[in-house]
Amino acid sequence: MRIGVLGGGQLGRMLALAGVPLGLRFVFEDPAAETPAQLIAEQIVGAYEDQDVHHSLAERVDLVTYEFENVPVAALYHLAEHRPVFPVPQALGIMQDRAKEKRLCEQLAIPVPPFRKVETLDQLRAAAADLGFPLMLKTRYAGYDGRGQRRVDEPAALEPAFSALGGRLLLAEPVVPFARELSLIAVRGRDGVCAAYPLTENHHQDGILRWSRPLTDAGAVEQQTVAETYARRVLEHLGYVGVVTLEFFEVGGVLLVNEMAPRVHNSGHWTIEGAATSQFENHLRAGLGWPLGPTTRRGFSVMMNIIGTEPDVARILAVPGAHLHLYGKDARPHRKLGHVTLVAETAEQLRAQELRLAAGLAASPPLAAATA
Amino acid sequence: MRIGVLGGGQLGRMLALAGVPLGLRFVFEDPAAETPAQLIAEQIVGAYEDQDVHHSLAERVDLVTYEFENVPVAALYHLAEHRPVFPVPQALGIMQDRAKEKRLCEQLAIPVPPFRKVETLDQLRAAAADLGFPLMLKTRYAGYDGRGQRRVDEPAALEPAFSALGGRLLLAEPVVPFARELSLIAVRGRDGVCAAYPLTENHHQDGILRWSRPLTDAGAVEQQTVAETYARRVLEHLGYVGVVTLEFFEVGGVLLVNEMAPRVHNSGHWTIEGAATSQFENHLRAGLGWPLGPTTRRGFSVMMNIIGTEPDVARILAVPGAHLHLYGKDARPHRKLGHVTLVAETAEQLRAQELRLAAGLAASPPLAAATA
Repeated sequence: MRIGVLGGGQLGRMLALAGVPLGLRFVFEDPAAETPAQLIAEQIVGAYEDQDVHHSLAERVDLVTYEFENVPVAALYHLAEHRPVFPVPQALGIMQDRAKEKRLCEQLAIPVPPFRKVETLDQLRAAAADLGFPLMLKTRYAGYDGRGQRRVDEPAALEPAFSALGGRLLLAEPVVPFARELSLIAVRGRDGVCAAYPLTENHHQDGILRWSRPLTDAGAVEQQTVAETYARRVLEHLGYVGVVTLEFFEVGGVLLVNEMAPRVHNSGHWTIEGAATSQFENHLRAGLGWPLGPTTRRGFSVMMNIIGTEPDVARILAVPGAHLHLYGKDARPHRKLGHVTLVAETAEQLRAQELRLAAGLAASPPLAAATA
Repeated sequence: MRIGVLGGGQLGRMLALAGVPLGLRFVFEDPAAETPAQLIAEQIVGAYEDQDVHHSLAERVDLVTYEFENVPVAALYHLAEHRPVFPVPQALGIMQDRAKEKRLCEQLAIPVPPFRKVETLDQLRAAAADLGFPLMLKTRYAGYDGRGQRRVDEPAALEPAFSALGGRLLLAEPVVPFARELSLIAVRGRDGVCAAYPLTENHHQDGILRWSRPLTDAGAVEQQTVAETYARRVLEHLGYVGVVTLEFFEVGGVLLVNEMAPRVHNSGHWTIEGAATSQFENHLRAGLGWPLGPTTRRGFSVMMNIIGTEPDVARILAVPGAHLHLYGKDARPHRKLGHVTLVAETAEQLRAQELRLAAGLAASPPLAAATA
């Protein structure tokens, strides 16, 4: 069975690493020739707008998925005329637009922070009057790793923020005073069976995810149930197949959806070693109509991203339970070059090793402090 | 860092799957164009005797290893003039010859069954007079999966067995009335640090490994110590770097070395999900001079080979904790097409699922029965 994947980044690479042992073969499509995925699989280089490229992909594969949110949704609909595409193209159409995904949440009675769509400076001023300060101004499309966002603290800052993001469809929302950021990786099979991994706490810095840690405290049981209920509503409403990610702000114990992604997610990388089945394998199992694997934790784990500079491999591997994942990318500031998942049998062991790992990665802030 | 690998079989493929996340790239050398490894990595097709092929490999890589025992040892020595080769070529020279590996064991005070070298029918008759019946007649070189072996139960069967294996260097040994077969996967780093995985019980049928299970009983502690002592003697004597496998017959509680392999091994496949670090990753870490990863068990596991016929993938994946590994090979009788490692948190859970898995694989004998 051959799987076509739009996007040849690290998510695609890890999909292939999970799928090859299942007997699958992969063909990637990406506008860039040098990608993390092409080092281990076939790749077609071409623009996502190029129908000939899609034909060429469709001819070579049995099934198509995507690992990148900023693919034109028209490309998916076009591919879907030739080959089954999962997750359903409609999901990408909604989740690549911050306004549409929030509307969907409202429709499904899933709490989201208040927001206003903004296309003009006047609309932004009106939004600020409604929402107050501080607020976040975000592009509706194509934002990632903190790009396409501006924080606005006072009326005088509205115009510069609007100019900086100008010409694009925007959205304004209050700065949410969250206690923490959580995410849920959920998956739905072709038979409608749903499953979800443990809620994961995420820590960002400069808009980029630094570390993720599956919750292990008994107090999280209720939040887990709530989050799974929300995910199930989205999955069933869309007739979704594959992995979906819901990112939450936790405010006063309440979960508000911040955004959703119709794909495997950085905050789920710990599932490779830290769960009974990885998010990558379960995404593929879902798309192929195979039974989903268990999503239970294996031990205690934390995932730390490697950002910007080449890591000291030997120092990382000297930490017992550290699992290194490099993506084959050249170092560049703010770039995700890889990640390390640290796994331990007990929470105490994890705490003892994670400071060592953070030191090896020159990561800050100290994780144990941030978790205590 | 680029790793060259002689042999493009499933062991090479799994080495690459373990090494790609570490940022490594692989180039394989194999006489066959269609191999499990070439589906996910570069491959040079050429005879192991061809020096030009070795030059071409050496030019493309930083370090060379091998995943196949029946490579001419001269190829390794030749490659070693250009690039570091691990494990040391001398190890292959010894372990690809049943007589030399037994001699080495004797030299290092590691118990082996009695044996006689056989080149003529007269020598075979003399060996039978010394060793008695039943005996095994084996080719010294190039035996695997039960090939190159004949059991001889009576004097009249000596000549037919000799003819069947004739023209090759042979070795005769008594049929050892073992209680069980065990193996030890050990590894030595460039810094001389040694580590070993838990002893693994192996069950063969028709000379082919059917299942492997790491020992978990407290009674195995003493045997583990003995086996590790033997492995360390071999590793240190040879100045070995990388993974080595020792296969044992257990007779009356005593471990006798049956054979050794200078490479990762089928009986260590369970380490991918069942140990803190896989045998494949530790082989690479060793060769690269990186710290070895912990070799401790993660939960309880059993590995079952998929032999001869395509498996029912959905049925296998329906068993919770089953991890499928297909090698991308066409089905053919007696051919290892893949394996499944079943992992559980407790021995009871493992027992409950392994019957289901065995049924899914149409494997016999029932494993629980064989273990009880």
